[in-house]
Amino acid sequence: MKRMGMVIGIAPERVAEYRRLHAAVWPAVLERIAASGIRDDTIYLREPENLLFASWEYDGSELEGDRAAIAADPQTQRWWPFADPCQRPLASRAPGEDWSAMEEVLHVD
Amino acid sequence: MKRMGMVIGIAPERVAEYRRLHAAVWPAVLERIAASGIRDDTIYLREPENLLFASWEYDGSELEGDRAAIAADPQTQRWWPFADPCQRPLASRAPGEDWSAMEEVLHVD
Repeated sequence: MKRMGMVIGIAPERVAEYRRLHAAVWPAVLERIAASGIRDDTIYLREPENLLFASWEYDGSELEGDRAAIAADPQTQRWWPFADPCQRPLASRAPGEDWSAMEEVLHVD
Repeated sequence: MKRMGMVIGIAPERVAEYRRLHAAVWPAVLERIAASGIRDDTIYLREPENLLFASWEYDGSELEGDRAAIAADPQTQRWWPFADPCQRPLASRAPGEDWSAMEEVLHVD
């Protein structure tokens, strides 16, 4: 199992929309995430810094393939145009990143 | 069980020190946290934004009392002068906050 933490900005004028969307994520999107081994998926919002922090546990064995399966899913592809315009990727993001990876400095079970 | 997410700044010149400290947290500090019902405690670091993101699960029934027990613990009180000077509370923090609370907008088991 691999814990992963990520961060991205949020457009302040779209915070309410983001909350509404995530209070009722499409079941097919959640099913695809689960099928790709992602568990305990949480997103936190911080205002007024307008940041989203996400963490999950990945319990599969081939992360790139599991991510590709999410990206190739037609329902997920229909979901992203709702969520993505709310998000503001960090200026410091790595090439290819949308959400930016964070470094784990502590974990205690 | 209550999930909690928090954020705080970190002094960029103390990132290496913070990593070292948290790679070897004093056992008594971890024992006190566990005795107060805190599980699955994780801290992530994001550079160059110099932010720390923490999350945990609280499985006790009296959060204020459990936090007070941590604050009253002599070993924990000796630990904080090592960790605290690395941290930079957000300007937007609420009265009484050190780490700032975040709002959960999504959770999927």
